[in-house]
Amino acid sequence: MDHPEKSKYKSALKENEGIETPNTTNPSAIVRYQQRRKQKLSAQNIVSRIISGDKVALSQGITLIESLNPQHQIESNAIIQGCLPYANKSVRIGITGVPGVGKSTFIEAFGKLLTSTGKKVAVLAIDPSSSITRGSILGDKTRMEELVKDENAYIRPSASGDSLGGVARKTRESIILCEACGFDTILVETVGVGQSETAVQSMVDFFLLLNLAGAGDELQGIKRGIMEMADLVVINKADGENIKRAHQAKLDFNRALHLFPAKPSGWTPKVRTCSAIEQTGISEVWNIIEEYTQLTQESKYFEMHRREQNQYWMLETINENILSHFYNTPSIKSQIEDSKKAVQKNEISPFAAAQKILKMYFNQKS
Amino acid sequence: MDHPEKSKYKSALKENEGIETPNTTNPSAIVRYQQRRKQKLSAQNIVSRIISGDKVALSQGITLIESLNPQHQIESNAIIQGCLPYANKSVRIGITGVPGVGKSTFIEAFGKLLTSTGKKVAVLAIDPSSSITRGSILGDKTRMEELVKDENAYIRPSASGDSLGGVARKTRESIILCEACGFDTILVETVGVGQSETAVQSMVDFFLLLNLAGAGDELQGIKRGIMEMADLVVINKADGENIKRAHQAKLDFNRALHLFPAKPSGWTPKVRTCSAIEQTGISEVWNIIEEYTQLTQESKYFEMHRREQNQYWMLETINENILSHFYNTPSIKSQIEDSKKAVQKNEISPFAAAQKILKMYFNQKS
Repeated sequence: MDHPEKSKYKSALKENEGIETPNTTNPSAIVRYQQRRKQKLSAQNIVSRIISGDKVALSQGITLIESLNPQHQIESNAIIQGCLPYANKSVRIGITGVPGVGKSTFIEAFGKLLTSTGKKVAVLAIDPSSSITRGSILGDKTRMEELVKDENAYIRPSASGDSLGGVARKTRESIILCEACGFDTILVETVGVGQSETAVQSMVDFFLLLNLAGAGDELQGIKRGIMEMADLVVINKADGENIKRAHQAKLDFNRALHLFPAKPSGWTPKVRTCSAIEQTGISEVWNIIEEYTQLTQESKYFEMHRREQNQYWMLETINENILSHFYNTPSIKSQIEDSKKAVQKNEISPFAAAQKILKMYFNQKS
Repeated sequence: MDHPEKSKYKSALKENEGIETPNTTNPSAIVRYQQRRKQKLSAQNIVSRIISGDKVALSQGITLIESLNPQHQIESNAIIQGCLPYANKSVRIGITGVPGVGKSTFIEAFGKLLTSTGKKVAVLAIDPSSSITRGSILGDKTRMEELVKDENAYIRPSASGDSLGGVARKTRESIILCEACGFDTILVETVGVGQSETAVQSMVDFFLLLNLAGAGDELQGIKRGIMEMADLVVINKADGENIKRAHQAKLDFNRALHLFPAKPSGWTPKVRTCSAIEQTGISEVWNIIEEYTQLTQESKYFEMHRREQNQYWMLETINENILSHFYNTPSIKSQIEDSKKAVQKNEISPFAAAQKILKMYFNQKS
């Protein structure tokens, strides 16, 4: 029985088109979620590879730490967090000295000696000036020909083109990754001419100042205050005709260090001579560092000092950010320039000028 | 013709009660204005008395600077501003040394020597610890019996019970008032055991480190870094049996200072011996300071250094206030304590912890 209107109704089972079931999740949230998951996976992957001792993963991790991309920063934070439980088991040594003192040759000889005794050595550098001077330190890896080929060594040039605070933070974070990767001796190199030494002192256990023999003038290039930081002064190039002068320099430095007040570590700074080229006196340097770590580990200073350093970095990072927020407020920027001039001309007291600017800032904020 | 309704209208000249003429000025504003005028008059009065050399007014001014009362702070700001054009004409000398080195005796002898040649000497002190130690420096004025009675000397003990930053700021401001009062030689005393020396270095032209003869141990009490600040090291108590040891100490210090890098002033730090009690070697100290001021005034370093110091105090005051606003935010306070613990236990990296706190702060503000 064909009904003329059948086509009209088709089937009794016909379903009317209802409203579409709404998506339970926002599609863009899904994309974000997937990205985050991918990032998390990639961070997890890098962490597990770093922990297994993979130097390629270590380099990837440090590259993410150095990146200015906010996405990479999220990822690198996850990597650092993942590496943290595996870090902290090492001796961190700061090495400084003016250009020409033979830092690269020394680090090459010192590093080779350490790897030959089964140690794993990572070499990092802090050099905020490298973007200007085209990387005077570690930039030219060929100066450490042997060490760079060594399976148990890892050399990473300084992150450049950034503020000292930025470079220092990145180096500090890179140390965590290197330690998680199994490196038990971390060497942090600086050129002893800037403020970077204070930053380095806040991330190492032991501070080594490399010097040359001379008539006292050799310190002219070294910034004030660095001498006092040294746990060990090594007079390099104590070879050939230089030996006598090197020994005289050793006596002079010993006398000078003796006049300094005692260190909170309880350690008495030492002076030694060496020749990085002839590879003499190098093992003595390591013996002294071992003596130092033994002394300070027994006295618990070693651990306490590291805790203080962690706190220092937390507070330092906070202070840096709070102040940079202030100084980068556009209205403040121009006001500060005007006030500086007025203060220099004694038109207003430094304190009244400061109060004026502070009032401006806090009124804007509230 | 009596109209029955007359009483109703009384007179055609009746004035309706209008609105009261408003006061042209708010009565409470008048009170405020009168108070401000009084303050201004009182500030002006103190300024003009200070400029005329009135030591009582000087003390009143410094007391207002030291006061924590906000009303007094407004007044003291006006006083400083009024004194500013008359300030800046002096030599500012920082004197430091550990307790027991004979600072008071030295300052007494040195101050008397200066006033005897017609100089006007003001002695201020920075001692943030004085509230705890009951004022170890200048607190006991009787130790400067002669100088305290001298018409051309002014001695003011340290403002106490405050942070180092606060005490330093107050001393820095007091210098302005002393100079406006005609004092041409300002001595700023500190105990060489804290961080106050950095603050002092930022307010003086010349830094004198007082020491004792000994075997090198005499520096044990002096904080690291102070040696490097010294423009002159004076070995005190070079008398009687001590003379030989004092001369040996002089040689040692000379050798040590020689190893330090050159100063930005171009000045080579010197070492001398003296006996404050026997009053020998004291005039030599002044000769050296004169030599220094001549050298640095000719090279324009003196003036440039003071300008830099003014800038330093402006920026330092700003930084201190910006950071203290942050650290005194109640929610931040408790979070920082928690984060410090987590960072110490290596549960979180110092940088991640800092980022968390910063996020909290800036979210609250915006």
